[in-house]
Amino acid sequence: MKTPAPGALAHAIRFLAIDAIVRAGEGHQGVPLGMAEIATALYTRHLKFDAADPTWPDRDRVVLSNGHGSMLLYAVLHLTGHARMGIEQLRTFRDFGSACEGHPERDVSAGIEVTTGPLGQGIANAFGMAVAEAFLNARFGPGLVDHRTYAFVGDGCLQEGVGQEMIALAGHLQLGKLTLLWDDNRITDDGATDLSISEDVAERCRVAGWHVVELDGHDLEAVSAALDAARGDPRPSMLACRTVIARGVARLEGQRGGHSGKLFPADAQAARVQLGWSHPPFELPADVQQAWRAAGRRGAAERAAWLRRTSALPAAQRAEFERVLAGELPEGWRDVLAAHKRQAPQRAPLPSGIFESAEINDALVDLLPERMVACADLEAPTNHKRRLTAHTASDRSGAYVHCGVREHVMGAMANGMAAHGGVLPLAVTYLAFADYERPAMRMAALMGLPVRFVFSHDSIGIGRNGPTHQPVEILASLRAMPNMRVLRPADAVEAAECWEIAYEHRSGPCTLVFARQCLPHVRSAESAASAVNLSRRGAYVLSGHDERLGPRKVTLLATGSEVALALAAQAMLQGQGVSTAVVSMPCWELFEEQDASYRAEVLGRSTVRVGCEAAMRFGWDRWLGERGGFIGMTGFGACGTAEELYRHFGITAEAIVAEASRLLALTTA
Amino acid sequence: MKTPAPGALAHAIRFLAIDAIVRAGEGHQGVPLGMAEIATALYTRHLKFDAADPTWPDRDRVVLSNGHGSMLLYAVLHLTGHARMGIEQLRTFRDFGSACEGHPERDVSAGIEVTTGPLGQGIANAFGMAVAEAFLNARFGPGLVDHRTYAFVGDGCLQEGVGQEMIALAGHLQLGKLTLLWDDNRITDDGATDLSISEDVAERCRVAGWHVVELDGHDLEAVSAALDAARGDPRPSMLACRTVIARGVARLEGQRGGHSGKLFPADAQAARVQLGWSHPPFELPADVQQAWRAAGRRGAAERAAWLRRTSALPAAQRAEFERVLAGELPEGWRDVLAAHKRQAPQRAPLPSGIFESAEINDALVDLLPERMVACADLEAPTNHKRRLTAHTASDRSGAYVHCGVREHVMGAMANGMAAHGGVLPLAVTYLAFADYERPAMRMAALMGLPVRFVFSHDSIGIGRNGPTHQPVEILASLRAMPNMRVLRPADAVEAAECWEIAYEHRSGPCTLVFARQCLPHVRSAESAASAVNLSRRGAYVLSGHDERLGPRKVTLLATGSEVALALAAQAMLQGQGVSTAVVSMPCWELFEEQDASYRAEVLGRSTVRVGCEAAMRFGWDRWLGERGGFIGMTGFGACGTAEELYRHFGITAEAIVAEASRLLALTTA
Repeated sequence: MKTPAPGALAHAIRFLAIDAIVRAGEGHQGVPLGMAEIATALYTRHLKFDAADPTWPDRDRVVLSNGHGSMLLYAVLHLTGHARMGIEQLRTFRDFGSACEGHPERDVSAGIEVTTGPLGQGIANAFGMAVAEAFLNARFGPGLVDHRTYAFVGDGCLQEGVGQEMIALAGHLQLGKLTLLWDDNRITDDGATDLSISEDVAERCRVAGWHVVELDGHDLEAVSAALDAARGDPRPSMLACRTVIARGVARLEGQRGGHSGKLFPADAQAARVQLGWSHPPFELPADVQQAWRAAGRRGAAERAAWLRRTSALPAAQRAEFERVLAGELPEGWRDVLAAHKRQAPQRAPLPSGIFESAEINDALVDLLPERMVACADLEAPTNHKRRLTAHTASDRSGAYVHCGVREHVMGAMANGMAAHGGVLPLAVTYLAFADYERPAMRMAALMGLPVRFVFSHDSIGIGRNGPTHQPVEILASLRAMPNMRVLRPADAVEAAECWEIAYEHRSGPCTLVFARQCLPHVRSAESAASAVNLSRRGAYVLSGHDERLGPRKVTLLATGSEVALALAAQAMLQGQGVSTAVVSMPCWELFEEQDASYRAEVLGRSTVRVGCEAAMRFGWDRWLGERGGFIGMTGFGACGTAEELYRHFGITAEAIVAEASRLLALTTA
Repeated sequence: MKTPAPGALAHAIRFLAIDAIVRAGEGHQGVPLGMAEIATALYTRHLKFDAADPTWPDRDRVVLSNGHGSMLLYAVLHLTGHARMGIEQLRTFRDFGSACEGHPERDVSAGIEVTTGPLGQGIANAFGMAVAEAFLNARFGPGLVDHRTYAFVGDGCLQEGVGQEMIALAGHLQLGKLTLLWDDNRITDDGATDLSISEDVAERCRVAGWHVVELDGHDLEAVSAALDAARGDPRPSMLACRTVIARGVARLEGQRGGHSGKLFPADAQAARVQLGWSHPPFELPADVQQAWRAAGRRGAAERAAWLRRTSALPAAQRAEFERVLAGELPEGWRDVLAAHKRQAPQRAPLPSGIFESAEINDALVDLLPERMVACADLEAPTNHKRRLTAHTASDRSGAYVHCGVREHVMGAMANGMAAHGGVLPLAVTYLAFADYERPAMRMAALMGLPVRFVFSHDSIGIGRNGPTHQPVEILASLRAMPNMRVLRPADAVEAAECWEIAYEHRSGPCTLVFARQCLPHVRSAESAASAVNLSRRGAYVLSGHDERLGPRKVTLLATGSEVALALAAQAMLQGQGVSTAVVSMPCWELFEEQDASYRAEVLGRSTVRVGCEAAMRFGWDRWLGERGGFIGMTGFGACGTAEELYRHFGITAEAIVAEASRLLALTTA
């Protein structure tokens, strides 16, 4: 069989995309038509992969950061023979239940590394993958980990702040195995890019320390040469590929409508004439099909060699490598947490809640060498570096990433690390700045990635930096997010329990929230010595009512730093003869998962309920019921010491007592 | 009296900052000590202002984007004689109730233009102010509006994505009156900036089209010359000022601890020796004091001339100028909305909910020339440009800002416009991308700025772009935010009512949320013709129960696109003999403000309640009570048509009926 011209391979992508989009009646043709030669060069000549096993750990990673161009990815995955991307999937593009969804949704076994769509996230994920690779390469050596990471990227990703943060930080870290393939088509949804951008993007990348190649993105040989050049350069590479959007559909080529203007059967027909493509929809000539299939197995020998190398490893080394890749925790990790938990009540609480988290994680350093900690320029106040060394351009073994004041790329980088596998990422900053990172947190939740987002300075308790730095609504906003576990421990013991929960949770992200101020011990030495993780049920009776006072009349519900206030209020109420229990609620999502009878028992059947949290009430009604009371914030904070602010905003044991008493009086009235 | 050396003027800033920080026991000395000469040059020689009236509309604007350095601003405001910044305020720096809060909190009459602290926001606000100035200058002429905007900025602001977006967009728009004063001290909280940044920031700005001057930030003459150069250049200017952090406190100069390491009385003493400053804490030599006071009145004559010019305007022109500056809406604006509301039920609903908003705003174009609309590269699907023209470098009269795919700077720019005054900003994008803009939305809420954040594509109703583009938790996350009104109208009539609420609300931002899909009419022609804005109470009985069926047994609560489902369910339930009312809840915050008896009446006393919203339940329990039901989302969306997804996720009239019936059975059981 004759070898097809490379152009025919690219046209195969074009027509699969055109046919799928015409059938679906909608879609974004701009990317697959404009980047067909680029994808062809990458997949048929450069990418290290084997379609027979899309999960091969040492494969090159590919991210379609311009996720709306999903048909580019689906077409290439299909053409290279990915089993999960049969033609029936492309024929159902954008239909409910199809593997070819509107935007790519993470499914590694189908060849989709990450979910993309919200712009800028994908290139930041790719950056995280490249960091993970560099780190694992340093630890395990190039025989086991040595791959490149590529991202297709459009103008939008590069306009987004998170994209700009990534350009700066990836340049700083000189990630030489990272390559961006920029679809420089000079068109965005609104029209010409010069509506909103004037800068020379290539030059901007050069300033950031990138290797930049400017080329014709429809010249397959030029793309291929640039990919060679990228491989030969120690800097991250930006291939600035001049392209024509919607190339092949004359009516839309280079036009605003090229992005996602409706494609009609007549367009598909015209394109066939224009490009000399005589094949019916979804059908490919045998030589083209065969050439693409061959490309899909190009890496088979390399994968086999890699498998031989891993098989030949000494047993312990192999087991460790496989453990890390599988994301399994090592023997003994729970013991470290149990020891911490047991010992905590015997020492003074640390001066800051976040230091309890730092202490726990420091205790795990030797056991979890696969962990990487990223922080947005708050090393000292969050204190999670400790024995870790910095991950730098000259030392890839460092596990601590100084992200600069760039929370957004920090979160998206952590997602990329988790998506890569073999790395267990933490991302640390103040809770007030969670909003900067939130779009990445949403993607972690949507993809179900085990990223641990750690936050300190979680309330007005931060004191005199004032309301900009005082979260009041952020706990609620994160609890509202599906598939995100929000953990707010009350003391050192709960901190250990919450970290146990966070480390064992692998089907989604966790948010761990710590006070700046000291968290006094609230848990007994007895419960701390127990193997039972009370926090695992999400909420539990921390301090039962005094049975001598009769049945429970009041239930006080609190989280984190306010649990101590609830305990003080309990003492006062019981001093007045009112039997009162205190419930600690470190994780609402876990409590929601408990059966109704446990929940009812904890919340108290027909007792008065008062919730207390130094945050807005929003969301609390779920637990308080219609007649419950709440002591917390009703608006933004203020500048003052923690003590002044708690008093000023009326978040005190006395206020809890007064509210409980008021509700009791209503009940008995 | 002799003229003090300029250095002494700068030292006055230094010692006020040192004395205040030593007294408070905490604070960030890095900025005031490092930027003292820069601030002195600006305020004593260049800035157009008159301390006698900090609200003078044509004053130059100053933003302290590195807000942690608040003592720089407080010191200068005090020295120049701002009445609200007496020495007693500086003596109480960071105390509860002081005007000198930890971070600057917007208070124009005290000289504080915007609240700053979360990094990057301030320079983006300054950018918005510069856009507002350019727009007003084009409309009213340089005799009325002609001022510059300055921002102090640190490394962090320039690392943040929002800062990078601002650099790109301000360069694109060539805002020649915008000047950044960069504190290039090569230190961040973590230590040397080279921990996290390698790029040449000055060069990065040049690439973006900025005029860059690199200079010694401690050379007052050099700063002054650079400010002259900035004024003479048509591009936005970046003054890259090499500085030494904490200059004057030898122990911390140029050190990591210079940022906010604790200052002791001994440091203050050593600084006095080092800098030859013999005055006691908070005391200034008379010549220095007088020179600063004189600087504070430098602009008095210019202000007087401006006042004469405005007084001399023709009455109508003057009234219009004053109206716009005051943020008052013109006569007749409500009539436009009333007409829209009245006519809406007589025509077919528009094909997309967001188009109803576009139609309303288009009807107001002639009446509200002060309105500017910003959009993040979604002009066609959100449709709010229509008769507006683009605001460009060559046409400052355009009211539509093509922001590119940069939601974050869009929101922060809108905040800057509102803080500037004279402009009424709208910021438009998809609801799924509200998270990108959220840190700016929080600042609008915190500052109480009347920004209208407009969102389309508000649920799974967007269809086949899939879960990345389908908000499910974002309504809840915005409702959780203090001082943010979230409005989700159900049809064209409610859209007009919600826009009336949004335009009349001036003490804080509004979020207006619209469906992508068509919103069928739910309001009667009769209620549409009424002058009463039913939405103003936040929730109201849209369709009362059929009294022939007896007292109300079921209350269905819904918002936006789900109100139509609730009406369909009502018909089915009443067809089964169950008396049912439908409550539309376009704005929870307004409903919360109603008295308890109205709320109880609307929610139904001892009826079964079922809420319906194509979003997470989080927050709904406030209205449903413990035994209420909810029909909505329980996780992220999927790829499919709107119809398929509503059916798949069980958000249907039938599901509402089933849930109401289940709850009724429990009640009667």
